This record gives sequence, structure tokens and C-alpha cells, in this order.
Amino acid sequence: MSLPSIAVVLSRTSHPGNIGAAARAMKTMGLSDLRLVAPRRFPDPEAVALAAGGADVLDSARVVASLEEALVDRVLSVGFTARGRGLSLPAATVRECAPEIVAAAAEGGVALVFGNETSGLSNDELGRCQRVATIPSSAAYPSLNLAAAVQVACYEVALASEAHAPAAARAHPPATGKDVESLFAHLESSMIASGYLDPKRPGKLMERFRRLFGRARLERAEVKALRGMLDAFEKKMGRARRR
Amino acid sequence: MSLPSIAVVLSRTSHPGNIGAAARAMKTMGLSDLRLVAPRRFPDPEAVALAAGGADVLDSARVVASLEEALVDRVLSVGFTARGRGLSLPAATVRECAPEIVAAAAEGGVALVFGNETSGLSNDELGRCQRVATIPSSAAYPSLNLAAAVQVACYEVALASEAHAPAAARAHPPATGKDVESLFAHLESSMIASGYLDPKRPGKLMERFRRLFGRARLERAEVKALRGMLDAFEKKMGRARRR
Repeated sequence: MSLPSIAVVLSRTSHPGNIGAAARAMKTMGLSDLRLVAPRRFPDPEAVALAAGGADVLDSARVVASLEEALVDRVLSVGFTARGRGLSLPAATVRECAPEIVAAAAEGGVALVFGNETSGLSNDELGRCQRVATIPSSAAYPSLNLAAAVQVACYEVALASEAHAPAAARAHPPATGKDVESLFAHLESSMIASGYLDPKRPGKLMERFRRLFGRARLERAEVKALRGMLDAFEKKMGRARRR
Repeated sequence: MSLPSIAVVLSRTSHPGNIGAAARAMKTMGLSDLRLVAPRRFPDPEAVALAAGGADVLDSARVVASLEEALVDRVLSVGFTARGRGLSLPAATVRECAPEIVAAAAEGGVALVFGNETSGLSNDELGRCQRVATIPSSAAYPSLNLAAAVQVACYEVALASEAHAPAAARAHPPATGKDVESLFAHLESSMIASGYLDPKRPGKLMERFRRLFGRARLERAEVKALRGMLDAFEKKMGRARRR
């Protein structure tokens, strides 16, 4: 088992021990790409102690300032939550998601995204993921330790990858995180320009669009087409396109 | 999910933090019966800290002196190892084992048995289990943290229990750990009495029988029949049966 194109992204982790234990969990399942979004304490000796044989995964971990930055080269990002909430995408179990994760990893980079120990992923963070996955757990106490959740997720993905015969590459290359974010920025500015979106009272409009397009898992050519359309609208509205 | 008849048995655990984290892992999957065989340090504040919402599982954990004692009321014991070794039973993956575990839990008590962090389960400990299970992992680094292994095992069992419609009870009640141990003690004394087993050079004979009968998952009536047979042999050999 070796899954170099599947990254684990830990956002705003509080306890360095959990980072180390997550590195170990990844290593046991053949994953090696660890990305840390604004960790509270890192590097830290406690992370090293708990990484054990996953020390190399920890050593090569990348620290980034924002989730957007962590996902910039990913063609599929899967956010993990303990339960669905609000407007969120319909959550599937990690076992249900695993085949799609493995298939996407053959096309480009995938991210498994985990939030802070106490608060989980925020709605904004979930909005940057194209899929939401849950680990089935007891209603009486659904709180898996962060590294334990990483272990189960990597385990499911590793098992699915063993079962998976790589499919033919998609005819149409998928959009990257950067492509998708450029689209959302463009969409937002266009909607503001149109008066449809009031920047002082944005409500859930962008969130809704993020989820719609997230569910669709955009292709690069589609992003281009959508942005071309927005350009055309903007031109007609008599406003230069914002870069 | 609630799986009261499935126990987790941790044998000779070195680090109390792992005991606490295992209690938490169990609780997230609806398990509550934790048994500790000769833990190095317990109770311990580190176990409490890592148990988090699984504190009640930790509080009600039972400490016993031997694995035999932990398994005395179990009708199926499943030992977890990182890899097969020596004479061991053919190991199945935990996913393959999970339906049988859930089915057995409807008949009586089941144990998921985990060894020491460094050395795993000894051959003697594995010999007291009727099944050997592995968690598939990377050949480069197969060492899951103990609590992470407990998490994956409980997760697989919990998922299988959700999928499982309880089967009709077996016509023949299964033997408990106590029944089976009484048989092995009886078998050993009989073989010694017969001269077939040299207590000074026992070799792997008992181990072999343990695995044979373990694979079979004995019924209570079968134990009775086997012991009756041994009684008859002993009588013929002119030696009173050992109690």
C-alpha cells in the first residue's frame, strides 16, 4: 500500500500529540503527505514522541496559513464531520466515499480534511470541500479522538485502494482547488456587481453555491466556461472584470 | 449502536494512556466492557486524561491476573496480531471476522484481545483465542498504536452489527472459556498420564491442540463428550482422574 497522492490536512489542531499520532496512523496505512493549517503548537516534542515510526511523515509535514492554501493542488477534498449540520452537503460514510477517493487519487491530488479537536470543521472549511464524510459512531458519544479518526479514514482508503483497479483516466481533467476558488471569487464579485449579493448582508448565498459546485466536482473546462460566462455578464453590466 | 456482550481485553499493557484512549475508542463505537490483564500501571491519571468521554468505560474496567481469567465467560475470543507467526491459526482480516463476532455476540460473550504494545500477543495468549485477526496495514510500517487498533476493530464490529440481522440461536450452546480450559487441562494430564506428553519436553503439542479446537469453536456438549472420553481412558490406564 502506498498512497502518495492522498494528503491528510489537519486544520487548527490544538494538541501536538494528535499531530504526531495522526502521522503514525497515516504511515501505517501507506499515506505520507501531511499538511497542517495553522496548528497551535508545531513543531513540538510531543508530536515527535507520538509519531513513533511515522517520524518521516511528521518531518516532511507542511505548515500553511489557510485551508485554501492546503487544498490549492487538490482535485478532491473530503471534509470529515461527526454529524451533518445546517446547509451541509449530504454526508456519506467514509466507507461509501472511499472508492471515489481512490479513483480521484489516480487523477490528481486528494485531501482528507479534519478540523479542530473541539469544534471540528467550520462551515467555511466544509464549504471548501467537495464531499463531506462521517465515521459512523455511537449516538451516545460520537467523539473519536482526532488521530483515531485519521486512522479509520486512512484504513478505509487503504482497503479501498487494494480493491481498486485503476479506471481509465477521465476524458476531462478535473478542476484544482485554485481553479475552483478563482471561480468563487469571480462569482462573488459578479453577484455583488449585479446587486444580487449585498456584501453587507451576504447571508448563505456563497455557501449555497459552494455546496452546489462542490457536489458537482467541477472540471477545469467547466470552470473556464463559467468564468467566461461571468465575464460576459460583467461586460454587459458595464463593469470591468475584477482580477 | 450498543454492544454490551463484546469485551475488549488488553493484555500486559505498558502505557496507561493507551488504556484510556482504548476506553474512549470503545465508547465511540458502543462498547463498554473493558478487561485489563496485568496492566503495568493502572489506575493512572494519564488513562483518565485520555479516556475523555469514555471515563465510564474506564471506571468500570476489570483488572484480572491472567488472560484465562479474562476469557472465562467468553464463547469466542479473537486475538489481534500484526502478522501471522509460527503455528498460528490462519489470520483473517478484522473485516472478514466481524460478521462472526457479531453473530457470536448474540449467543454469549465475545472478547477482542490485544497484546502488549511492543511484543503483541504471545503464542500462549494466541493459543487461548479461537480466531486470529489482523488489521491490514502497510508492509513498510504495520505498527498501529494500540488504541488505534482498538478503534479500528470496534469500528468494524459496530458496522457489522448494524448490518447484521440476528440469526436464530444455535441449537447447541457454545462452550465458554472456562469449559475449554477445563478440557485442555484434562487433555494435558491425560496425555502426561499416558506418557504421550513429556512434561519436561512438551514441545508444541498442547499449542497444536489448542489451535485445532480453537478453530472448531467447541460446543459445551462436545467438551463434555471429550472429557468423558478422557475419563474413560484414564480409568483404563488405572489412574484416578485429576480434578
